[in-house]
Amino acid sequence: MRMVDIITKKQNGKELTTEEIQFFVGGYTDGSIPDYQASALAMAIYFQDMTDRERADLTMAMVNSGETIDLSAIEGIKVDKHSTGGVGDTTTLVLAPLVAALDVPVAKMSGRGLGHTGGTIDKLEAVEGFHVELSKNEFIDLVNRDKVAVIGQSGNLTPADKKLYALRDVTGTVNSIPLIASSIMSKKIAAGADAIVLDVKTGAGAFMKTDEDAANLAKAMVRIGNNVGRQTMAVISDMSQPLGFAIGNALEVKEAIDTLKGEGPEDLHELVLTLGSQMVVLAQKAETLDEAREKLIEVMKNGKALQKFKDFLENQGGDSSVADDPAKLPQAAYKIDVLSKEAGVVSEIVADQIGVAAMLLGAGRATKEDKIDLAVGIMLRKKVGDAVEKGEPLVTLYANRENVDDVIAKVYENIQIAEKAEAPKLVHTVITE
Amino acid sequence: MRMVDIITKKQNGKELTTEEIQFFVGGYTDGSIPDYQASALAMAIYFQDMTDRERADLTMAMVNSGETIDLSAIEGIKVDKHSTGGVGDTTTLVLAPLVAALDVPVAKMSGRGLGHTGGTIDKLEAVEGFHVELSKNEFIDLVNRDKVAVIGQSGNLTPADKKLYALRDVTGTVNSIPLIASSIMSKKIAAGADAIVLDVKTGAGAFMKTDEDAANLAKAMVRIGNNVGRQTMAVISDMSQPLGFAIGNALEVKEAIDTLKGEGPEDLHELVLTLGSQMVVLAQKAETLDEAREKLIEVMKNGKALQKFKDFLENQGGDSSVADDPAKLPQAAYKIDVLSKEAGVVSEIVADQIGVAAMLLGAGRATKEDKIDLAVGIMLRKKVGDAVEKGEPLVTLYANRENVDDVIAKVYENIQIAEKAEAPKLVHTVITE
Repeated sequence: MRMVDIITKKQNGKELTTEEIQFFVGGYTDGSIPDYQASALAMAIYFQDMTDRERADLTMAMVNSGETIDLSAIEGIKVDKHSTGGVGDTTTLVLAPLVAALDVPVAKMSGRGLGHTGGTIDKLEAVEGFHVELSKNEFIDLVNRDKVAVIGQSGNLTPADKKLYALRDVTGTVNSIPLIASSIMSKKIAAGADAIVLDVKTGAGAFMKTDEDAANLAKAMVRIGNNVGRQTMAVISDMSQPLGFAIGNALEVKEAIDTLKGEGPEDLHELVLTLGSQMVVLAQKAETLDEAREKLIEVMKNGKALQKFKDFLENQGGDSSVADDPAKLPQAAYKIDVLSKEAGVVSEIVADQIGVAAMLLGAGRATKEDKIDLAVGIMLRKKVGDAVEKGEPLVTLYANRENVDDVIAKVYENIQIAEKAEAPKLVHTVITE
Repeated sequence: MRMVDIITKKQNGKELTTEEIQFFVGGYTDGSIPDYQASALAMAIYFQDMTDRERADLTMAMVNSGETIDLSAIEGIKVDKHSTGGVGDTTTLVLAPLVAALDVPVAKMSGRGLGHTGGTIDKLEAVEGFHVELSKNEFIDLVNRDKVAVIGQSGNLTPADKKLYALRDVTGTVNSIPLIASSIMSKKIAAGADAIVLDVKTGAGAFMKTDEDAANLAKAMVRIGNNVGRQTMAVISDMSQPLGFAIGNALEVKEAIDTLKGEGPEDLHELVLTLGSQMVVLAQKAETLDEAREKLIEVMKNGKALQKFKDFLENQGGDSSVADDPAKLPQAAYKIDVLSKEAGVVSEIVADQIGVAAMLLGAGRATKEDKIDLAVGIMLRKKVGDAVEKGEPLVTLYANRENVDDVIAKVYENIQIAEKAEAPKLVHTVITE
């Protein structure tokens, strides 16, 4: 088998065989196939696409390119959630204890990563004492006993995907549905998921700018999951403005606590119920999405969801009293309101730029070496569609530096006031097959 | 400027600017742009094509990536001929002295290369004493005085093209009209051509298998040439069977001598007149193609063409008496007729496979290290459309080994006899603008 023939075959619009896809992924992983052939194939795939069978084969070849996590010692159907990424996305913090309260096992592997705020582990470290240094056995025992635990990423998972992703980034082949979908799905499957719920963001703050693109990606991933024996559902959700009010690590923990009590921001509350329902159904803890939703609302109301969060924190060394007294979370030295210069209705909050503003305050990492300030961030005081008076706060900055003129300027640049505007619909589509 | 943006722009079907093309070619030549980005761009070009302006810019950027030959000290319009390659193609040997006899300056840079037979220099070395070790001044003086000289390839011409060609070969991007056309044209222009005549082969023995593909390539090259100030014309000619009768180095020199006297094989004679007419017109030694053709026939008839060949050989140390006594050329030890097993009409002579048969006898190089046997080769005794009796020779093998069963088997495999068949048309199209 020769790589050049595989490239030419795809270039001519033909379907690659399972063996050809495995030959490429294996050879690229071990270095016998060079970058310049991989980039040529990626570009050919960009133009000629892949069939469902090819996409499933590519996904599993990437899964098998490295180690995989064996979660078979955990009872029940392990459902993982993946979001394509946005600003102020607190859903994982809420969903993990929320569905665990309905006995859905959540064995979460998470990372720190780069971005506007920290990753899930960074956020949880805003709770004093919380840590993810668990042995594999401790991790499995915790999930079996209390249904939820989070561990740091370890092991050499999907090395083919890591290598290919880095290459795509510099060769103009990031934006290819079969390549994006197989990349995401391979990581989830290698991390041990039996079933997968996907939150595909759409809008200005998301990678997919239109509903159509987002739906194509979501359908592609759902089909891959189902074709490789991992039941998968997806939600297309709005990311034209940040989700919820909080953008920042401790601020999002506080918002998660509110949401677990059923008192969270309307959009976050709704998204958590939508994604959570899918997780509960896939874990076979409810028959229908409606039944699952009712059960989720119930554990919010009766305190079981919050109690599960407390158990989860305690199990991993965290001070669970923050759930009752969020003032124990890291506090910023300065709270600065940014006031509206005019009256009207908020018509636009540019999600990714407000995320950058939070990063300027220190809430996220631009490079791996950056240190995160867990206390700082931005609380939105208005969302798109809200009326605002002149002099009313648009956002409150939580800062550990006195002069935040740069951040204020960025906020003004990226929040627009108009005569009228409507709140965007949060959940655009639910894709269940 | 970032290479990834250039790739993405072409991927999206946009036209690259002159600066972007220069950035790519310059960066790829000096190594600052890696192979994996170049292959991604080549694949994007394969799918999205290039405009005439882009093709001209790419050609000139490759010309300027290395040294160029300055032939300005030679009087007149230097016309170069390029063939896309075939089997038994003796045209260069004939054309150089033939058009020089009409005062068209032929300053030919030639190579050895790989193939079924040697390159032009190998063939000429079948004439005892002939050499191409000329200084640049000697070369120019010879062309100014006698209008024709051949020199070996030297200098670092079009390094960008060399690098890109090697990359395309292993990344499935050889077969792209803008990339093929700019590659060929850049080499001719770097070698100092003022005007260019192209012989684009079509058929089983050629790179372009159909007339349509060949015409597209020819038009692309003619347009590039004219857009960068080098008048260019092209001929689409048949390569479904070998050209002429001779395949082999000394055998082709003998055939060239016959053709210079107007006594060559019909197809070679016709192709030489067609290409030669274009060269004469481009060099402004005739007003029309018809006038040029008459003049060429005249110098064949009156002996001036053959005399020019003799002068050319003498000038470069060769024994010109071979022109009158071709028996002085290297002779093979064995002449073996391969006889037809049946009566009928020759319906197919698979050009490239007959070329391989000649190479098996030692007429060409498979690798750079191989030594060529100048005496050996194959003479066709029949061409497609010719009637043949059972027991009549199809070809004669000129060999320096006694056992040529392998070659005979290959010949039988690749010459078909049918009840009837017609001779293919040699010149398919003439493209003058």
